[in-house]
Amino acid sequence: MSDYTEEAIELHKQVKGKIGIMLKTEVVSRDDLSKVYTPGVAAVSSGIADGSLDVREVTMKGNTIAVVTDGSAVLGLGNIGPEAALPVMEGKAMLFKELGGVNAMPICLNTKTKEETIACVRAIAPGFGGINLEDIAAPDCFAIEDALQDLGIPVFHDDQHATAIVVYAGLINALKVIQKDSPLKIIVNGAGAAGVAITRLLARAPEQYAVSIEDILVCDSKGIISKDREGLNDIKKSLLDYTNKDNISGLLSDAMQNADVFIGVSKGNVVSRDMVRSMKDSSIIFAMANPTPEITPDEAREAGAAIVATGRSDHYNQVNNVLAFPGIFKAALQYGYPQITEDMKYRVAYALAQYVKNPGVDSIIPNALDKGVVDAILESLTGL
Amino acid sequence: MSDYTEEAIELHKQVKGKIGIMLKTEVVSRDDLSKVYTPGVAAVSSGIADGSLDVREVTMKGNTIAVVTDGSAVLGLGNIGPEAALPVMEGKAMLFKELGGVNAMPICLNTKTKEETIACVRAIAPGFGGINLEDIAAPDCFAIEDALQDLGIPVFHDDQHATAIVVYAGLINALKVIQKDSPLKIIVNGAGAAGVAITRLLARAPEQYAVSIEDILVCDSKGIISKDREGLNDIKKSLLDYTNKDNISGLLSDAMQNADVFIGVSKGNVVSRDMVRSMKDSSIIFAMANPTPEITPDEAREAGAAIVATGRSDHYNQVNNVLAFPGIFKAALQYGYPQITEDMKYRVAYALAQYVKNPGVDSIIPNALDKGVVDAILESLTGL
Repeated sequence: MSDYTEEAIELHKQVKGKIGIMLKTEVVSRDDLSKVYTPGVAAVSSGIADGSLDVREVTMKGNTIAVVTDGSAVLGLGNIGPEAALPVMEGKAMLFKELGGVNAMPICLNTKTKEETIACVRAIAPGFGGINLEDIAAPDCFAIEDALQDLGIPVFHDDQHATAIVVYAGLINALKVIQKDSPLKIIVNGAGAAGVAITRLLARAPEQYAVSIEDILVCDSKGIISKDREGLNDIKKSLLDYTNKDNISGLLSDAMQNADVFIGVSKGNVVSRDMVRSMKDSSIIFAMANPTPEITPDEAREAGAAIVATGRSDHYNQVNNVLAFPGIFKAALQYGYPQITEDMKYRVAYALAQYVKNPGVDSIIPNALDKGVVDAILESLTGL
Repeated sequence: MSDYTEEAIELHKQVKGKIGIMLKTEVVSRDDLSKVYTPGVAAVSSGIADGSLDVREVTMKGNTIAVVTDGSAVLGLGNIGPEAALPVMEGKAMLFKELGGVNAMPICLNTKTKEETIACVRAIAPGFGGINLEDIAAPDCFAIEDALQDLGIPVFHDDQHATAIVVYAGLINALKVIQKDSPLKIIVNGAGAAGVAITRLLARAPEQYAVSIEDILVCDSKGIISKDREGLNDIKKSLLDYTNKDNISGLLSDAMQNADVFIGVSKGNVVSRDMVRSMKDSSIIFAMANPTPEITPDEAREAGAAIVATGRSDHYNQVNNVLAFPGIFKAALQYGYPQITEDMKYRVAYALAQYVKNPGVDSIIPNALDKGVVDAILESLTGL
């Protein structure tokens, strides 16, 4: 298939910006001007200042978020900087609007440290009802998100949690399809934003949401993360609280022996057919590296995988975080939630899984652009 | 007349945000998604990163600005903070779009020092083609604007320069109407953002744009700014380089004796009929305090003023900076200018004055919502 390079460049040159500002009311007459601007607007500002009006009820804050990046981990392209990240953030903003009806504004930050990024997000927060952190490299992404949880508006790192939520939903349905119910040995390949979030969501699930897990092994580019590894950063160390119970060392190929589930969120082309063959029967493969998966679905299936999902739109079972973020922010804005809690993430994962009425080998996850998904998420998050 | 309080609050409650995000291209099909987002967008980001694509040609940066405030000097309301400033910034953004076709995004900053504001504007700059600073208190507004002139995109404090430009245009036409040609004694009441900018624009005009000036006296709340005043801040001191040649001290009422022009940009109700009577014959009064002018047009006229302008939309001769900012930013974005230079400000002032074909006592300034004004400004700024 085409990778859409030429079509995408052509389209971007043509539209010169995929989003713009629209007016929700007219400003044509002097009378309009007096209501939307001076002198009338003074009463609205005064009302917000003295507390008689709620800023969320009378301004865009009630339905507008910022999509914030520092351009340090953009798609598979790495640290390409804030200007080069802008087309991606615009695309994200389009999806927020199209699927969730949420106004999202790209904010591409020329910041060099996590402290600068935190300070800047704090500074811009008053005008927004939420902050979607995007394409910020690990491990700074964890510290940045943690530091901003007191803002009073949801701050949510999409690359971590939306991805983890959709994987969780897919896993729930995959287990239904192949009727696996013995405790699972799960391999997560990649200890960046997505890998860490997936591992945490799997390992820390409350009982009512939990899948039965024997152990999780997380691998990074040096192999299995174990207590014997030197130079692990704090985030990777913390994963050892709930992974690798037997303190196994080795490479990814060692980890995969007798595993039930492989979840790849790192480099492509790192899983061979033999590695899949070394897994248990009816294995489940999430090969989500982009654009090249860890192993192609055809190869994985030939080597014995029962269910394969990827990150690509040209394969079935596409794990796309667009399934999660529009609905989550729409709900948070509509219901006025100040944070996206762990409980909310599990609720959304379950709602996404339930949304697929008859999951099958090729349909463990809803279609990425299915407009009914947002309503299902809204329903799952009501009244918390 | 109504001050539009109730109508404005009602409208704001109804629309819940006067602006939103619009999509300039569709994202309905999987094919759309592949072009506007992954995988196709990677080629656009890569192209920007490696310099083969110009970010202004393929993203919203080419036609989007930020309207940045810290909420420290909002309308006549003072330091009401960033959230309460949001409805005003939204109104501003509407005018940018409606009149100039420019996408403008409100950015309301929770910053407490000018250093924080400068750092934050620097940080967010990559995603924007210009920065309109708005409702930031003097004297910080001067330092903030100065510090950001190296960003490579125009940074323009509207309350200073757009106001000064429109006053300058009005003064040019007022002088035509009453055919005053002797050197002018001009009083500027107010040494905040607008007062300082008006004084500078008047005093530092290159010959081809200059009006003939005998002297300018600037007054603040303590009276005439003179060398004998103690505790003047640096900005006020710097005004003495080109005002108050004879080092006169006294109150506003002293300053106004035998003056030709009064320009008020501070408090309302500070000019009496007797003060107008003490001016020269055929005096010109810009009573722009909002919402209450320094003196009402009727009173000023009765006391001998030949021409009166205010900031209000319900009087003729409304000095409204909306006449300047949409066209200036439209031109800067369209022509790719990295700064709004002094020369550009004079060009725009002259273009605005010329736009009024037959200026009269009641028509020295174009109508605030006249859509032809932007084209006149574009024309005046072409090919610099």
